[in-house]
Amino acid sequence: MKLELSKVVQGCRLGVLIGIGKTGQHSLELPGCLLYTRCATVPHLTQDTLHTLTYLPAGAQVALDGLAEHHEVLEEFKEGVRKFAGLHDTALFCSLHDPATNCPTGHVTNKTVSVWGSGGRIEMTAARFIAMQAVIQPDCYQSMADGETWQTNTSRKRVHKAVNRTLAHLDECLTLHHKTPQLKHTEVFGVVEGGDILEERVRSARETAKRPVAGFVLDGFQSAAMEQELRGQLITAVTAELPVEKPRMLQGVGRPDEVIACVEAGVDLFEGFFPFQVTERGCALCFDYNVTPDPEAAALSPPTVLELNGERPAVEDPKQNDVGNTGTMTQFEINLKDIRYREDFRPLVEGCGCYCCKNHHRAYVHHLLVTSELLAGVLLMLHNTAHYLGFFRALREAISHERLQDFKTTVTKVDFGGRKQLH
Amino acid sequence: MKLELSKVVQGCRLGVLIGIGKTGQHSLELPGCLLYTRCATVPHLTQDTLHTLTYLPAGAQVALDGLAEHHEVLEEFKEGVRKFAGLHDTALFCSLHDPATNCPTGHVTNKTVSVWGSGGRIEMTAARFIAMQAVIQPDCYQSMADGETWQTNTSRKRVHKAVNRTLAHLDECLTLHHKTPQLKHTEVFGVVEGGDILEERVRSARETAKRPVAGFVLDGFQSAAMEQELRGQLITAVTAELPVEKPRMLQGVGRPDEVIACVEAGVDLFEGFFPFQVTERGCALCFDYNVTPDPEAAALSPPTVLELNGERPAVEDPKQNDVGNTGTMTQFEINLKDIRYREDFRPLVEGCGCYCCKNHHRAYVHHLLVTSELLAGVLLMLHNTAHYLGFFRALREAISHERLQDFKTTVTKVDFGGRKQLH
Repeated sequence: MKLELSKVVQGCRLGVLIGIGKTGQHSLELPGCLLYTRCATVPHLTQDTLHTLTYLPAGAQVALDGLAEHHEVLEEFKEGVRKFAGLHDTALFCSLHDPATNCPTGHVTNKTVSVWGSGGRIEMTAARFIAMQAVIQPDCYQSMADGETWQTNTSRKRVHKAVNRTLAHLDECLTLHHKTPQLKHTEVFGVVEGGDILEERVRSARETAKRPVAGFVLDGFQSAAMEQELRGQLITAVTAELPVEKPRMLQGVGRPDEVIACVEAGVDLFEGFFPFQVTERGCALCFDYNVTPDPEAAALSPPTVLELNGERPAVEDPKQNDVGNTGTMTQFEINLKDIRYREDFRPLVEGCGCYCCKNHHRAYVHHLLVTSELLAGVLLMLHNTAHYLGFFRALREAISHERLQDFKTTVTKVDFGGRKQLH
Repeated sequence: MKLELSKVVQGCRLGVLIGIGKTGQHSLELPGCLLYTRCATVPHLTQDTLHTLTYLPAGAQVALDGLAEHHEVLEEFKEGVRKFAGLHDTALFCSLHDPATNCPTGHVTNKTVSVWGSGGRIEMTAARFIAMQAVIQPDCYQSMADGETWQTNTSRKRVHKAVNRTLAHLDECLTLHHKTPQLKHTEVFGVVEGGDILEERVRSARETAKRPVAGFVLDGFQSAAMEQELRGQLITAVTAELPVEKPRMLQGVGRPDEVIACVEAGVDLFEGFFPFQVTERGCALCFDYNVTPDPEAAALSPPTVLELNGERPAVEDPKQNDVGNTGTMTQFEINLKDIRYREDFRPLVEGCGCYCCKNHHRAYVHHLLVTSELLAGVLLMLHNTAHYLGFFRALREAISHERLQDFKTTVTKVDFGGRKQLH
């Protein structure tokens, strides 16, 4: 695996990660996101439905918590989770926890981490962890880590311990990794911890960078856990300690505005769970990410998406829409359960090329949602995935053309004052 | 619409229903089944996923109960439910109730019938019923009917009243139908009632046949309601009264063995809800319907499907598997939630050409089911629909080659005694 940087602008790194995967044939454009899966399955979608989308990333994420209880089956199957789940040709990154599921804390020890499957907690020593990776057969995986220091007000002592533990876990994993023939072509990402304490973050980054890892996972920066400004400062400090030629993946962050801020702080890779959370709350991503090619023309031709939507996103009462761990509704989406879409015969996003937008309109998706038809999830997942991947593509484009400021303005603008509201 | 019969063998009618639909371009091979939809959506499947299946019938069923509360939206939309739901080119038959949902009784009056949407009961006069059809714009629809006499021990008086009411409803519907320009090319099926009383069944059939209807719906023969033998006798008596050149559709019957018996009694068309019910209980259809081409070769080469399955269907305790109105597990399916499939790396049915069987194995579908992944429903629905349509194709073939007895034996055999049980 090799990272080829083509440009660094305002902290943003533009590049391509090449030679990913055992055969080395995959590459991933950065900044980018992985495809989100649960139990190695893209929720709602068959592989064929998924592949109606263009520009799918060459990498997908699987989480250990959904797979751990299937250890025996995978062991029996022998050919790894990619083949088991019938995934088309894609590189697999195995993380410890599903980013869209909350998991209980208080179970990491010096020798073990715990993951939660549908049957409850599964405790893992490094030996069991590596044995699990040997049957999953991912292309990359994150090492074991003590990630339980993301809450604010975690004591300095606890954070210090977490950093030490995570380094010890990494060393043990690396030793076992090299003794495991099934993992010969698999690469390990080291995990940077340190909570909200700058010195610990820097120490964790510096120490992890000394180990023979292929890349870095930045843990403990979940959206809910930290103020955006503090997160930006900590990540900037962390990435400054990391070698430029290795990729940095950030866990738990998915909102478009936060993604941009983290890219400016030096992050390359994100988890792709955000479109899934949007889907689960019955919403459709509809924010604009098209930067007008010529700033002077902007005054004449208004931006495409929002103008065509013509309405204020339905974020009047985000709390009402909070549905557990699918997260809270954001300014980037519209709530299709809302009665205002009952007779709205426009596509979710005008001009969107996804299967849903080409074949259906908002009124139909609304109708599927209110009658609890499962197809609603399929259609929304298709659209939201397409829209989110489009956002990342546009972000890379903006960095490439040094138009990041315009891009940020376009993505984050929420004031539609004065614009005609259709419904 | 025109029914062209090519053969009648042992009561079974083989033919093609041609010129269906407003444009007259659809045709349906008989005996056959319609594609089942809920709220005009094939459950779990997008239209593109659905069309990975070959031999899809040219007709789909929509039920009034799922659509009635969307009257205003459809009225606003103006172009009918086929376009609203993004259904590919297909003829639509609109029935009164969803066959896979139980609906409360005791609400039919001389002037109204009731249907139940997600928001509760909706009472319909003939005027409202016809107005609803005018916005749904199906190709055929069943007339209003008093179908509340299917329970055994319904009094003779109540059954008599139901037959009279249903005829009165039909007359009123026909009058209004002819005054409604939107229904100019839509056809009406009359409904035969009569509970389990032979004379009332005959009277209902005879009187309905006098009206200008395009075909007949045989109501009140639900699987749960009646002994198979009595049902066969009643249906035979009913179909003897109906003109040969018009199609007879039977409601509420879907089990393969019951389908064959009803075809022998003169039924042409079935609702396609059975594969959906099988899917909802986490099961896969796996019964054999391949009649060996040469009876003498049968002794040498054993039947394909069951031999390859090599196991006894998991019907040990059907009651345990009863999941509300998705029905009870039958001998025609295997329960993929069963732990015996955890390491079973064969397709659902060896040699099946559906997307699921070509790409996945039982262990994976088991894994999706136990981890409650929604994709399980998608894959099972694809397979079960393919298998059920294959069964109907084989049934027509068997009638055509006068091999019905062999076909019945193949489909209904449940004794696998002496055969090796793999798990």
